[in-house]
Amino acid sequence: MQKYGLVIHGGAGVILRNEMSPELEAQYRARLAEALAAGYTVLDRGGTALEAVTATINVMEDSPLFNAGKGAVLNADGICELDASIMNGRTLEAGAVAGVHHIKNPINLARDVMQKSAHVMLAGKGAEVFAQSLGYEMMPESYFKTEFRAKQLEKAKELEQTHGAKSASLMQERVTFTTVDDNYLIQQFKWGTVGCAALDQHGNLAAGTSTGGMTNKKFGRVGDSPIIGAGTYANNATCAVSATGWGEFFIRASVAHDISAQMEYQGKSVRDAAAATIAKVGKLGGDGGVIAIDAQGHIAMEFNSPGMYRAYHLAGQPAVVAIYGDEAKQ
Amino acid sequence: MQKYGLVIHGGAGVILRNEMSPELEAQYRARLAEALAAGYTVLDRGGTALEAVTATINVMEDSPLFNAGKGAVLNADGICELDASIMNGRTLEAGAVAGVHHIKNPINLARDVMQKSAHVMLAGKGAEVFAQSLGYEMMPESYFKTEFRAKQLEKAKELEQTHGAKSASLMQERVTFTTVDDNYLIQQFKWGTVGCAALDQHGNLAAGTSTGGMTNKKFGRVGDSPIIGAGTYANNATCAVSATGWGEFFIRASVAHDISAQMEYQGKSVRDAAAATIAKVGKLGGDGGVIAIDAQGHIAMEFNSPGMYRAYHLAGQPAVVAIYGDEAKQ
Repeated sequence: MQKYGLVIHGGAGVILRNEMSPELEAQYRARLAEALAAGYTVLDRGGTALEAVTATINVMEDSPLFNAGKGAVLNADGICELDASIMNGRTLEAGAVAGVHHIKNPINLARDVMQKSAHVMLAGKGAEVFAQSLGYEMMPESYFKTEFRAKQLEKAKELEQTHGAKSASLMQERVTFTTVDDNYLIQQFKWGTVGCAALDQHGNLAAGTSTGGMTNKKFGRVGDSPIIGAGTYANNATCAVSATGWGEFFIRASVAHDISAQMEYQGKSVRDAAAATIAKVGKLGGDGGVIAIDAQGHIAMEFNSPGMYRAYHLAGQPAVVAIYGDEAKQ
Repeated sequence: MQKYGLVIHGGAGVILRNEMSPELEAQYRARLAEALAAGYTVLDRGGTALEAVTATINVMEDSPLFNAGKGAVLNADGICELDASIMNGRTLEAGAVAGVHHIKNPINLARDVMQKSAHVMLAGKGAEVFAQSLGYEMMPESYFKTEFRAKQLEKAKELEQTHGAKSASLMQERVTFTTVDDNYLIQQFKWGTVGCAALDQHGNLAAGTSTGGMTNKKFGRVGDSPIIGAGTYANNATCAVSATGWGEFFIRASVAHDISAQMEYQGKSVRDAAAATIAKVGKLGGDGGVIAIDAQGHIAMEFNSPGMYRAYHLAGQPAVVAIYGDEAKQ
């Protein structure tokens, strides 16, 4: 019997038990379970991996808890600027959008770039014009903005003023500033990217990723999430991958394609390949994680950060939701 | 003794002896030789691979013959919209810009993103603001535009009107329309991307790519050239690669990283790896080519199109310039 199932993430980073309130933790677990169920339901009724990826990511894009769609981080201008990508492992077709505003579900637009344009990647205003040509509703910027992200931006600008160019690495190193609250704001600056990798009953793989990038980002910065080969890759011959973390390092290591390449060229398992690639990212100085699934239904959830919001559901097994580093890795 | 040298391209495509005037051919050969010499001079005096890549690409960006910098193709709005990327094989640092206007030498801005920002990729207006913060001169759009590219855009719009959505693939298939002139216009629609891969006397590799993308491009389309892992990759442990061709296919195959990965994981030669990856692109339905050099000074110039503007110069050997498919491949 063909195995099927999916694995998802809602971002990796400094996620620690002693800094998470029971209420917030319960909210995250519930939303991850809901997103997982949305995709699993598609797979269970014989739908495609591509549909499952979209359905799953839509739940997380629509939730303010994650850094994607509604509730995404704010750029230096106080606006949500969204990136997403998707790939079909059966055909190696791919679609991506970078730096878009007004799009409620960027993963859907990435899928439409793949299926309804001659292109793989559309950026900025042009991507929005394409969306309008397909009848997408343009959401007001207020739809995306949350109070929490506004506070984060304030904190980021404050750090930038006091620490200048060093503020980015300070945020990264998670220096203890003053309060747990501050830490919570800071630790969430660039995490919360969402992604999904799925295997359907037809034996096809797909992966997708959606994000708002980094708090206080400037200059049209694009991270790994909309980059096919870095944030997202899928190939029926190997695996489907979605990444989350410090995007610059994930681009430099071509993370998603590197995992696929080790399986293709060395015959590695998806888990060993994912672990080796995340080790490379760590050696470069970056952190974050990946989720992946292969055509036999083996999964990987590897990260070198303290935690990663993650979940998986394989046919015939119970669904698993995890957050901290000491919970199920596989 | 440490070997050193470089290999360059000025685009791959339908380049046929019987459709090229002797005058134009001589111009291409002269400009390729000049670009090659600019980079070789840097390497010969002990400069870095990174400097050689930039010096070489600057010559081609400044020449109206190639689809990069001055003389780049026009997008649907009649404007040059430029992409570039660069990577340092020693550090795996990388920089890229996508969809920029007004920047005379986009490869220099990509290098500055790598060396003077915390990011890898900047897109659109934001990248220009970053350039201005570094004191870049903003060139008027008229600097980039040539009469030849204006004619191409006219022809592309005409094809689009008569053939609708099919026009892109018609251009690709190079249907014989009416005259040799028409063919020449059409065959050049998306070719002419420039790139360089270099090995310096310190044993370090670097690669870079610069382009104007596709004639009549819309919706902020981004091709493979600014995508680290697709159009450009460099790693001292394997090779430095720059690609040119139908960008969508090169992204889907993660071309530049795929060549590096075969060397890393299978121990393939740079030439065998490049040939295998170009074969994959062909299987997907795409065409184009790559140039690459490894840390031992072995080069690859692989393409599945009829021709590719290309040249190489290895220390202790004469410089070689080639255009057609029946000339030196290595």
